[in-house]
Amino acid sequence: MRLFLIFVALAIPAAAQVFTWSREQMIQYTGQNPFERFPDGRPKVPGALLEKVSGLTAEEVFTVLPGAKYPNQWEGNWRLLHPGRKLVGRAVTAQYMPLRPDVADVAEAGARAKGLAPNINQRVLDMLEPGDVLVVDLFGKVEQGTFIGDNLASYLFGRTKTGFVIDGSIRDLEGIYPIQMAGYFRSVHPSAIGNVMLTGVNVPVRIGSATVMPGDVVLGDREGVYFIPPHLVAAVVDNAEETHVHDEWTKAKLLTGKYKSSDLYPRPSDPALIREYEEYKKKKLAK
Amino acid sequence: MRLFLIFVALAIPAAAQVFTWSREQMIQYTGQNPFERFPDGRPKVPGALLEKVSGLTAEEVFTVLPGAKYPNQWEGNWRLLHPGRKLVGRAVTAQYMPLRPDVADVAEAGARAKGLAPNINQRVLDMLEPGDVLVVDLFGKVEQGTFIGDNLASYLFGRTKTGFVIDGSIRDLEGIYPIQMAGYFRSVHPSAIGNVMLTGVNVPVRIGSATVMPGDVVLGDREGVYFIPPHLVAAVVDNAEETHVHDEWTKAKLLTGKYKSSDLYPRPSDPALIREYEEYKKKKLAK
Amino acid sequence: MRLFLIFVALAIPAAAQVFTWSREQMIQYTGQNPFERFPDGRPKVPGALLEKVSGLTAEEVFTVLPGAKYPNQWEGNWRLLHPGRKLVGRAVTAQYMPLRPDVADVAEAGARAKGLAPNINQRVLDMLEPGDVLVVDLFGKVEQGTFIGDNLASYLFGRTKTGFVIDGSIRDLEGIYPIQMAGYFRSVHPSAIGNVMLTGVNVPVRIGSATVMPGDVVLGDREGVYFIPPHLVAAVVDNAEETHVHDEWTKAKLLTGKYKSSDLYPRPSDPALIREYEEYKKKKLAK
Amino acid sequence: MRLFLIFVALAIPAAAQVFTWSREQMIQYTGQNPFERFPDGRPKVPGALLEKVSGLTAEEVFTVLPGAKYPNQWEGNWRLLHPGRKLVGRAVTAQYMPLRPDVADVAEAGARAKGLAPNINQRVLDMLEPGDVLVVDLFGKVEQGTFIGDNLASYLFGRTKTGFVIDGSIRDLEGIYPIQMAGYFRSVHPSAIGNVMLTGVNVPVRIGSATVMPGDVVLGDREGVYFIPPHLVAAVVDNAEETHVHDEWTKAKLLTGKYKSSDLYPRPSDPALIREYEEYKKKKLAK
Amino acid sequence: MRLFLIFVALAIPAAAQVFTWSREQMIQYTGQNPFERFPDGRPKVPGALLEKVSGLTAEEVFTVLPGAKYPNQWEGNWRLLHPGRKLVGRAVTAQYMPLRPDVADVAEAGARAKGLAPNINQRVLDMLEPGDVLVVDLFGKVEQGTFIGDNLASYLFGRTKTGFVIDGSIRDLEGIYPIQMAGYFRSVHPSAIGNVMLTGVNVPVRIGSATVMPGDVVLGDREGVYFIPPHLVAAVVDNAEETHVHDEWTKAKLLTGKYKSSDLYPRPSDPALIREYEEYKKKKLAK
Amino acid sequence: MRLFLIFVALAIPAAAQVFTWSREQMIQYTGQNPFERFPDGRPKVPGALLEKVSGLTAEEVFTVLPGAKYPNQWEGNWRLLHPGRKLVGRAVTAQYMPLRPDVADVAEAGARAKGLAPNINQRVLDMLEPGDVLVVDLFGKVEQGTFIGDNLASYLFGRTKTGFVIDGSIRDLEGIYPIQMAGYFRSVHPSAIGNVMLTGVNVPVRIGSATVMPGDVVLGDREGVYFIPPHLVAAVVDNAEETHVHDEWTKAKLLTGKYKSSDLYPRPSDPALIREYEEYKKKKLAK
Repeated sequence: MRLFLIFVALAIPAAAQVFTWSREQMIQYTGQNPFERFPDGRPKVPGALLEKVSGLTAEEVFTVLPGAKYPNQWEGNWRLLHPGRKLVGRAVTAQYMPLRPDVADVAEAGARAKGLAPNINQRVLDMLEPGDVLVVDLFGKVEQGTFIGDNLASYLFGRTKTGFVIDGSIRDLEGIYPIQMAGYFRSVHPSAIGNVMLTGVNVPVRIGSATVMPGDVVLGDREGVYFIPPHLVAAVVDNAEETHVHDEWTKAKLLTGKYKSSDLYPRPSDPALIREYEEYKKKKLAK
Repeated sequence: MRLFLIFVALAIPAAAQVFTWSREQMIQYTGQNPFERFPDGRPKVPGALLEKVSGLTAEEVFTVLPGAKYPNQWEGNWRLLHPGRKLVGRAVTAQYMPLRPDVADVAEAGARAKGLAPNINQRVLDMLEPGDVLVVDLFGKVEQGTFIGDNLASYLFGRTKTGFVIDGSIRDLEGIYPIQMAGYFRSVHPSAIGNVMLTGVNVPVRIGSATVMPGDVVLGDREGVYFIPPHLVAAVVDNAEETHVHDEWTKAKLLTGKYKSSDLYPRPSDPALIREYEEYKKKKLAK
Repeated sequence: MRLFLIFVALAIPAAAQVFTWSREQMIQYTGQNPFERFPDGRPKVPGALLEKVSGLTAEEVFTVLPGAKYPNQWEGNWRLLHPGRKLVGRAVTAQYMPLRPDVADVAEAGARAKGLAPNINQRVLDMLEPGDVLVVDLFGKVEQGTFIGDNLASYLFGRTKTGFVIDGSIRDLEGIYPIQMAGYFRSVHPSAIGNVMLTGVNVPVRIGSATVMPGDVVLGDREGVYFIPPHLVAAVVDNAEETHVHDEWTKAKLLTGKYKSSDLYPRPSDPALIREYEEYKKKKLAK
Repeated sequence: MRLFLIFVALAIPAAAQVFTWSREQMIQYTGQNPFERFPDGRPKVPGALLEKVSGLTAEEVFTVLPGAKYPNQWEGNWRLLHPGRKLVGRAVTAQYMPLRPDVADVAEAGARAKGLAPNINQRVLDMLEPGDVLVVDLFGKVEQGTFIGDNLASYLFGRTKTGFVIDGSIRDLEGIYPIQMAGYFRSVHPSAIGNVMLTGVNVPVRIGSATVMPGDVVLGDREGVYFIPPHLVAAVVDNAEETHVHDEWTKAKLLTGKYKSSDLYPRPSDPALIREYEEYKKKKLAK
Repeated sequence: MRLFLIFVALAIPAAAQVFTWSREQMIQYTGQNPFERFPDGRPKVPGALLEKVSGLTAEEVFTVLPGAKYPNQWEGNWRLLHPGRKLVGRAVTAQYMPLRPDVADVAEAGARAKGLAPNINQRVLDMLEPGDVLVVDLFGKVEQGTFIGDNLASYLFGRTKTGFVIDGSIRDLEGIYPIQMAGYFRSVHPSAIGNVMLTGVNVPVRIGSATVMPGDVVLGDREGVYFIPPHLVAAVVDNAEETHVHDEWTKAKLLTGKYKSSDLYPRPSDPALIREYEEYKKKKLAK
Repeated sequence: MRLFLIFVALAIPAAAQVFTWSREQMIQYTGQNPFERFPDGRPKVPGALLEKVSGLTAEEVFTVLPGAKYPNQWEGNWRLLHPGRKLVGRAVTAQYMPLRPDVADVAEAGARAKGLAPNINQRVLDMLEPGDVLVVDLFGKVEQGTFIGDNLASYLFGRTKTGFVIDGSIRDLEGIYPIQMAGYFRSVHPSAIGNVMLTGVNVPVRIGSATVMPGDVVLGDREGVYFIPPHLVAAVVDNAEETHVHDEWTKAKLLTGKYKSSDLYPRPSDPALIREYEEYKKKKLAK
């Protein structure tokens, strides 16, 4: 029996992680992506669209996603590195589990065979491209769940110019704080990452009550983080444009204190106000 | 039986909410109010007194209230919109409960009969006057417990120039943040308010471990929110004036590092210091 | 001003609680009740129907209520006095808030005027009839939130032969335990009830995420407590009867270990099994 | 692009779940398993060994596993269906994530293509063999995280004669309670399972702070649940045999109250006691 | 400097723990104890009085202690080994802190010098006498906070015939469960005690919100644990005797369902009932 | 008996607190301290070394302490008064327990005999020297666990020029906030400190999962608080110096986005980069 096993081990090239999708699987599971893809099949939402997403807030995404049958794409209860810095980019996902050597040894052997870094977090970090946002399932682990310190945070920001979403902790907060990036994490601890194994890269991961796919557009604001499936990004952006104009006009009016809220919200009832708003909208959307 | 019920429904004009106080009830339950009242009987603590309250801190209220048998008027554990902005005004209260159609339908019919807005939060918002502070019992609900977004927050601030206390959540934090108002809330969520019904307006509400009455003076600082019964406001303000002077002098002395704390606090023991303090106090209170 | 107030106080007979419904209001808010009523208007679901409810489980209620637009009628996370004892009866509700003398004194004066007991919990207990289930909103208060000890628990059970639902705590657990009643509560504490005021009796109360109306049918099982609006009780009972028969037959089959679950559940696919089940059902429902 | 995608979708037979291991992968990742395997490669620890495991307690496993570099195989904080009933068997694992249609639709199409049941929990249940223990990662979900009710619990027990470990909730507790099986779960709720998708079957799953592999030996006692890798089961059992004898003798002595604990524990120091113990051990182990 | 230190170390016999009271200190801090003492000064409440305490419940202690200015003697939120088994005895206290070698090494050297067991929990266990109840401050630690397993639990019960209060965890619950003792603890874990140091024996310890002194009478019932200072035990017992009689009579009456609770509780108002009760009381107390 | 006790009370001079160390005990338990001491024996790490510690972060301490067998010296989950302000100084420790008069009265009598302030917090505050950091175990108490308000915070800062670590709460946050000091606390409350007694000063105290000794070097940064035993401070500082240089160079390189993280971290692999780094290091350490 042992012989047979060794034979199999030779015959099947081991993956570097327990869960790995081939390019074909990636394309199959993201089949609704209307955009280009990275070489590994991960959807590549265009930079121009990401630019527009950076002007959105969580509510503008919420207006579209649950109605499109995607109610599980937002997650809150984060600690923010720099509230006020928006986080926008394309998700690169990583999944960790508590370490067990029988599983980890097979995966590590596979990684070595591919010449990948042995370090469990750098292997993932070294995959990042500009515009990527790393999304890490460390199951909320605090002690030894510290995905990055100040050195690797510098790397991450230098490489991606975005930030990170870590369902776990970070270390070296004093050293990371000066970096002007957007970061979402659960806690902090001085310990180094340990007692975990990397089980998946660029596969679906669960972050709290959200499911995140590689290539999802990440939008982090003061409220929390939204993970937008690529095929819904355009609809979200289009819908938000009119909302922006509407809210701009409505908020300015309401701040005057001269109206009842129901005179203007959700929409004005007085014909003169309706006309005023319609003209404002026409002018704004024309730009 | 059903006929009888319909007859009753015709005979009794339904209230817009489950719990509504008549002007007479409001006056009865706030009988110790020494000030004027709004048309609905709600106590109207004078603006000049509110101005003085805005110079107080929670401790200065604490010095008076529990001793006057009001130990349940403070609530902490808030998330603050803008720490450092004080919240001061006259409480307008609202109570919500989980939705059940049998109850909600009767109340909504009553509201329609009075020409009130159907929207469960705007009906309350449209009642606000300058200087009011809205205090909402949403039982800490997060998802669908989002009382306001950026449009209605603009309205609320434009109308009252104060802020809000919501034992529930808000949405659109990214859009609300630029408004320079004071806000106390429990959490944030992108969802819209829903699955609740408005059960009371300007009746007593429970906010955590505090009971709030319409017309209470709301005082929010970095620590939490105090709800001061109108008949105790003057005593609180009077008591604080001397405390202010005392603490100013004492803190300046203690910051020098030259004394033992017990030389000066709670009061100086050295005759020279006593004299110095008495003179300082006389000069200050004279102003 | 003070004179005016006294005049009002004389003119309006104060209610014994802050929130009190007249018989007319009770009937208005429970207008869909198809059954008789108590003298105060509270719906009185017939004893024979209660008997049938005692054979149900939470799931059988769940099958009907959310679909009928009543998603907020169940509450879990209780501590149970005697798991395995079902709790069934007609809800009598009580609401408490943190004490403030200005409000409490008015209500207490009203209670005295009506000759009611001064004690804040006995006043409610003394209203109970056989078959009633007391449902108390004590906002989860533990210390001084102890609604009953062993003496009053004896009374409650002697009077109602049912049990209790207390969103607060009980005391004297050692003395209450021997009483063979069903009890749902949040915690235990040796202190006596205090620092609260009774604000409502037989008005809607919030128990966790459920809204309970006086006259609702309470059903407590090992899982938690359901509060069923009177007009939905018959539908729940009818629906459960066939479910009972279905589950009896299905469970017996599945326990044999001879089938795949999908052969039998939710319904059998094999014609012979379908026939067998239909015959079983006919026989059973005929009884 | 869309054409290309469709082409791919035709070319690659979709798996029934997002994460599926081939027989080869299963064997690779459980390469240290010294026992037979099920047709899908899952280790099959012999029944005789399972029998011996059923005599163990968590501590006896703890004595071996962390020392063998497996510190992450135990999980506590469960609610137990029947404390006192031991749970022993071979793990069948299932992983769920919050539903998103893009991913779920591909997997469901794969399942349909294989003729599998569409129902997200029955598909897993129908795979169970006698002696299996279902271990489900439902990420602690309570509402709509209810993996089984009384019908499917009957099936599960009828089929496996063991029990279940659900990192989520169950429904119909009143109906499940009479079944004399061992069950470990987090909570209860009347709702049905929903808003989730099955993402993996018989792949590694995280249950709290433990990583569970298909084929692990599950041992549940009053304390919690241990997941023992197959290649360590024999060592655990062997080690426990002497411990059993030691503890039997030691506990009996200590219960007499005649000794200091350090006279006997961890081992006796008096030569007469040492001799007595050695004789006892020889006799016992000889059996 | 180092020489000086060594000199000191020689000169001062190190205590076996960081905090140790001499017999004189023990007597000084328990100066109100009216009873005999153990050789180390610990108060020894007589067995006959303990016997009477075993008939009390938490409420009967609560009636006396806060009024006597002892409001901090009860602690709840325990997990109970055998609900229904009362725990009564004289407190032996132990305090632990997270391990630091500089402190622990000095204390261990002191212990070795006195010939005490090196094991951090057995050293305490070996001090126990019949009728003692061990009260351990392990600061709620779960993993490695496991004070006893089944061997040492056997010893503890064999020696004291009482039980334990551990503000920490226990291990081997499966093995401890069959022992018919009373146990109060916070959680369970399979790990062994570790990473802590014993800092005090028979000194005051904090158990949650209670302060426990060596020699306090421990009373554990279904509700939680009371720690009664020796000088208040007689007052508690005396007070409870009449309460017992009162409650017996009152509960029997109230269970009949024939009275309003206010007819009988807190005391009867009807002359005939008063007479009946007085006669009952006289007869009972005469026994 | 009572006579005997009084005699003892006269004979033994009572300590001002339950737990007090003599100078000899202090020296014994901090025997590894290589520095000078305060008159009471508390280690006095030199100011020059404290200066260097103020340039460190938690991670740089973590690199040394657990490896030196001190894993329990860090505590997180604080609320920070002014994130960004470092806290560095020599620990003065204080321990509180829930009040019980029998114990407190003896200690207070001792304090009076020594002419100490009766106030339970000022007695400790008045002991502070410049460079001290007060570390208070108030067991996380919120209400009545408020160690300082704005007057005493002014004193504390004026005296020490450092800050505080309070495992409890503070009051008067609005008044304390303007003081530019570093503060770590658990919560805020308007109440004054009460219902506690001071049980130890400059003895070991437990702060969460850390054990703190008088004289430990306190280092608070954005992440939490480290308590460094005096004999390890030099090693920590030495180790950090090279780390500082390493991280400076590495972070600057990684921020360029031109390298893979594994090219540079933990150390460079390319000979040219190695050379560049070595030269950088030589230059920097030479300064």
